[in-house]
Amino acid sequence: TINGQALWHDLVTTAAFGGTEKGGVCRLALTDEDAQVRAWFEQTCKALGCTVTYDSMGNQFARRAGTQSDLPPIMMGSHLDTQVTGGRFDGILGVLGGVAVLRALHDAGVSTQHPLEVVNWTNEEGARFTPPMLASGVFGGAFTEEFAGSRADAAGVTLRQELERGGFVGAEQCGQHPAAAYFELHIEQGPVLEAEERTIGVVTGVQGMRWYEVVVRGRSAHAGTTPMPMRKDALLAAARMIEQVNAVAQDYAPDGLSTIGIITALPASSNVVPREVRFTVDLRNPSEPVLQAMEQDFLQRMQACAQTSGVQVEVTPTWNSPAVHFDTRCVACVKDSTQELGYTMRDIVSGAGHDAVYVSRVVPTAMIFVPCLHGISHNEAESATPEDVTAGSNVLLHAVMKADEV
Amino acid sequence: TINGQALWHDLVTTAAFGGTEKGGVCRLALTDEDAQVRAWFEQTCKALGCTVTYDSMGNQFARRAGTQSDLPPIMMGSHLDTQVTGGRFDGILGVLGGVAVLRALHDAGVSTQHPLEVVNWTNEEGARFTPPMLASGVFGGAFTEEFAGSRADAAGVTLRQELERGGFVGAEQCGQHPAAAYFELHIEQGPVLEAEERTIGVVTGVQGMRWYEVVVRGRSAHAGTTPMPMRKDALLAAARMIEQVNAVAQDYAPDGLSTIGIITALPASSNVVPREVRFTVDLRNPSEPVLQAMEQDFLQRMQACAQTSGVQVEVTPTWNSPAVHFDTRCVACVKDSTQELGYTMRDIVSGAGHDAVYVSRVVPTAMIFVPCLHGISHNEAESATPEDVTAGSNVLLHAVMKADEV
Ligand SMILES: NC(=O)NCCC(=O)O
Ligand SMILES: NC(=O)NCCC(=O)O
Repeated sequence: TINGQALWHDLVTTAAFGGTEKGGVCRLALTDEDAQVRAWFEQTCKALGCTVTYDSMGNQFARRAGTQSDLPPIMMGSHLDTQVTGGRFDGILGVLGGVAVLRALHDAGVSTQHPLEVVNWTNEEGARFTPPMLASGVFGGAFTEEFAGSRADAAGVTLRQELERGGFVGAEQCGQHPAAAYFELHIEQGPVLEAEERTIGVVTGVQGMRWYEVVVRGRSAHAGTTPMPMRKDALLAAARMIEQVNAVAQDYAPDGLSTIGIITALPASSNVVPREVRFTVDLRNPSEPVLQAMEQDFLQRMQACAQTSGVQVEVTPTWNSPAVHFDTRCVACVKDSTQELGYTMRDIVSGAGHDAVYVSRVVPTAMIFVPCLHGISHNEAESATPEDVTAGSNVLLHAVMKADEV
Repeated sequence: TINGQALWHDLVTTAAFGGTEKGGVCRLALTDEDAQVRAWFEQTCKALGCTVTYDSMGNQFARRAGTQSDLPPIMMGSHLDTQVTGGRFDGILGVLGGVAVLRALHDAGVSTQHPLEVVNWTNEEGARFTPPMLASGVFGGAFTEEFAGSRADAAGVTLRQELERGGFVGAEQCGQHPAAAYFELHIEQGPVLEAEERTIGVVTGVQGMRWYEVVVRGRSAHAGTTPMPMRKDALLAAARMIEQVNAVAQDYAPDGLSTIGIITALPASSNVVPREVRFTVDLRNPSEPVLQAMEQDFLQRMQACAQTSGVQVEVTPTWNSPAVHFDTRCVACVKDSTQELGYTMRDIVSGAGHDAVYVSRVVPTAMIFVPCLHGISHNEAESATPEDVTAGSNVLLHAVMKADEV
């Protein structure tokens, strides 16, 4: 079984790489902080007898040999990058839970038939380079390596440049990595398990998510001399659009979600009516047809709003991750393990995207959720208990052992 | 009389310092482009027989001697800095109109009793360092030199640092500069003169204007897992507040104006509900008591909006420039000159702030407006005709001669 103390110690150790004053973590993909945690991960896994390699997207693979070296590996993992004001568990638990499984087997001197691998996927969050799950997306064939490498951060630096700067480019072509199964442990990032007092979420799939960039074009004008009726205020129009984007979620309550995370206005001077506003839109729904209807609703509302506000609007889709259903046999490994271990559980659909979404296109995949405090995530206050993260890792261990027997 | 061709030539020449592709000007205060236009101004005035000095705030004074050297100078002027996407006339015309007056006297071999000065005031726009009219504000006693010097741009560089970098710090203490009168020529920046087909606006005063910074605090949360009812979305709340700020102007139509020019949201990630939004507010009205009522209305609307949206709001006043009434004798000099020259005219209250606002606290002051195309300003499309700018400069010349006789 899992050594809960060692796992918790690893969580505390990794939280220091990019740790913030408020107890959160700021460790954007491929920054120096990310390089530090990658080095720590490599050393830790080597001490457990693993070999560690990179693929061409900087995905990091720690491999423990199996008794049958010709079998494809069973993979575990998630990501070590975080949001700007992120927490200590989102992604990290999936990697460290994998390390805890390796440690349990190492300490018990147990061998598996398949090789086991723990993977750290590059740039899952999409906080530095959009869209999210970029490197697991290349692995799963959702994005080309050229597209992913060309993505630039706010300062114009590309992912490819940062991969090379960090020395994270491995010889293996990303995606040319056969695997028998993939299990990802993660905090729920939502309120359901906590509210129902259940320890384990058996994740059956992930909801659909679509991103857009909206550009609103008005006319810049002097704040002190331009009569209100003569203005074409791009920000006032955008404010009305934000209210309308919110209304889209209300129309499809309770499952429909809509979020505007980034907004900029130009020319950004206190005494100038803004001529151009840009904002992002994130729409989600567990059902693809309903998400499609939300998109139509959203597009119509933007046009109507532009018309009544006397401005131009342009909406560009920037990401589309369709709803995913996980592999029934892998899900069964998770469910059966949870039952045997005696933890309370429920089936759950993930609201957040995960590397498992894209990995599941090429490898049989399932996920395990554990509760987090008040469902808060993408926030420095993100929190989970030692008991729950240990329970989740135990389920991960047993699920991997089950998959190894098949 | 004014040499209209030479004046237009100067307007074209100065438009090249920081000239933009769209025919506008980007010449933020104390940048290298501003240094270029300052050097050009100095050389041009020296060629007309002037001496050129700086005061401690980098205000630039070009002085043409009078026959009675003990009399305080009559000043003309405005500013040579622009908005980020500014025009070729806002401020610039007031300085170049003054140069045109010096040139007319120089070419005609005419002497005045008073010395004449053309002033280029530092950082009028408030686009780089807020608030606007910062250096004329120190001159007029509205701000201390310490306060003005400590103002920082978006990159954290202070006005004092930039004054020193450019070598613009003169020996004379800002404000220790006696003057007999000050006349500022400017484009109207609004639609009134054009609509009524009048050439000259006799500016009787300037409306009151107040600035605020609003901070909205919610809670960052995951875009994919946080149910809509559980969110404290600082941007959705801010969108509603923007609508309410607009409503304040509608309540006090047609004179009340409200503008939001700058907005930022944190942590600025597409899949994170914003935890904090900051925006600026600019409220204006020609009547101080009405402006006071607008402020109360605004503050109440912000609190009400925060309450219904479940967020915190904090409003900080950042600038207050009360309504101004210009010196009746100086205004009469403008009006009488316009009448003698036979231009169509009307009295007008300025919607924009000008250096004249603060200079008028210590020097008898008046302003002259000329029309600009469609009233558009703080926009690269800002435009005025050679005829109108020449007419305005002729009024400036005559007003100065009248003041010299008194
Ligand atoms: N798990 C997680 O927060 N991933 C980011 C992708 C998303 O926006 O859902
Ligand atoms: N004239 C001018 O545009 N000044 C800027 C100050 C203001 O905001 O009115």
